Amino acid sequence: MEKLSLGLCQTRTAISKEDNLREAADSVRRAAKAGARLVCLPEMFSCPYENSFFVRYAEPAGGQTFEALSDMARKNGVYLIGGSAPEQGEGGAIYNTSYCFDPRGEPAARHRKIFLFDVDLGPGGFRFAESDTLKAGDEITLFDSPWGKIGVAICFDLRFPELFRAMACRGAVLAVLPGAFSMATGPEHWRLSLRMRAVDNQVFTAGISPARDRRGVYVSYAHSLICDPWGRVLGELGGRRGILLRELDITLVEKIRRELPLLRLFNDKKELF
Amino acid sequence: MEKLSLGLCQTRTAISKEDNLREAADSVRRAAKAGARLVCLPEMFSCPYENSFFVRYAEPAGGQTFEALSDMARKNGVYLIGGSAPEQGEGGAIYNTSYCFDPRGEPAARHRKIFLFDVDLGPGGFRFAESDTLKAGDEITLFDSPWGKIGVAICFDLRFPELFRAMACRGAVLAVLPGAFSMATGPEHWRLSLRMRAVDNQVFTAGISPARDRRGVYVSYAHSLICDPWGRVLGELGGRRGILLRELDITLVEKIRRELPLLRLFNDKKELF
Repeated sequence: MEKLSLGLCQTRTAISKEDNLREAADSVRRAAKAGARLVCLPEMFSCPYENSFFVRYAEPAGGQTFEALSDMARKNGVYLIGGSAPEQGEGGAIYNTSYCFDPRGEPAARHRKIFLFDVDLGPGGFRFAESDTLKAGDEITLFDSPWGKIGVAICFDLRFPELFRAMACRGAVLAVLPGAFSMATGPEHWRLSLRMRAVDNQVFTAGISPARDRRGVYVSYAHSLICDPWGRVLGELGGRRGILLRELDITLVEKIRRELPLLRLFNDKKELF
Repeated sequence: MEKLSLGLCQTRTAISKEDNLREAADSVRRAAKAGARLVCLPEMFSCPYENSFFVRYAEPAGGQTFEALSDMARKNGVYLIGGSAPEQGEGGAIYNTSYCFDPRGEPAARHRKIFLFDVDLGPGGFRFAESDTLKAGDEITLFDSPWGKIGVAICFDLRFPELFRAMACRGAVLAVLPGAFSMATGPEHWRLSLRMRAVDNQVFTAGISPARDRRGVYVSYAHSLICDPWGRVLGELGGRRGILLRELDITLVEKIRRELPLLRLFNDKKELF
């Protein structure tokens, strides 16, 4: 099997949606030119990570952001996991949604973030709740590619091992996570979690964050990274804008599962849980 | 709540069962003397980690090893998680079993390893299968203590996030894992896994391994360690014999679960998985 050339575009989310879409298009073009066949953008790459912006920037599927992503995939002939953007859904609900496209620019999948980020550090402490404006999705998302099934989840979804197990049981060989961990949780849990989901499920994992902007609305930890099914980090960016490009040998998934049959052993016992 | 003073005894497993029981008793005594109220021994602390020894050393519950452990708990007035030993069970089946005792020396719990370690590196490669001699357990194990419920699992059980989730959902505040990761998997996955199970479930975790013996039947990675519910390693031994003693502030479990309600969010969505 041909190796999967994966490109992560660590763009920076500014205030202007137009500027953000332009930066994303430029970054996807450069990743494709460098050889990437699957390109991924960060969570909320086009919209500042803040509840009031989610409401203002939300668009229905088929809107400006959706069409811009479709164009990026088609013009560059790549599979594109379009980070995420606020989606204006049915009945006024807003979702944190990742639109994915095939190289013809046709929709390949849509993931709505399942686990909304709600944190409350108590009286006087930091509080942020996506659920103030967003509605949670309820579907596990995979799409077919020439290299096998690819799972998609968003940021806080990473906290839940069951979701990555479900992807692996449905055939994923790679799980891609647009995310924007904070400066509080990122250094502690971002790399750890992406490595462990890979090891537990014997899949490749990739996390794509916005670049860090200390003067921005939200300060992202950044550190986009790619991990192999043994938990080895194949590459990791720092805080700045950049593109991370790696060739993934997908046959490693099968090899590791043959040597250490975790999924089979789990399936033999899963009625216990 | 009084802090939990936890002591991990990283003993070395020699060939002689009597020597091993003596070393364990000595180590438990020293841990208790240093203030430990819950003391833990390594996987197969009394029996070399090799299939032929499992068969030769197996004893029914109530046998020599069981009684020695009960004595250690009672004489030192501690809760004791007795690592593990081959148990001669019903109908000739042998289990990899952890016997746990309260400070009166009464049985508090018994965990039979659920996930047996079967690895096969292919033609000409390393192959080891506990299932050649052992039978798998099928019960999730917790016991009550003055500090809250304590979950117990053994070594390869660590590979399965569902088991630790189940412990947390049943009320565990600490998960203890006698284990003996190898020099191949230990450096890659031991610390990573103990940290991630703690972070995912917002529990303390502790892994207790035999000391490394390069001339032994099985070369253990060792590195017994204790981790808090945020994934911070509170202490870690190296390859040599030793005792790791730490005070655990169990109120941290409740605090972190309040700030970042992972278990509640999981429960809200668990019908998806």
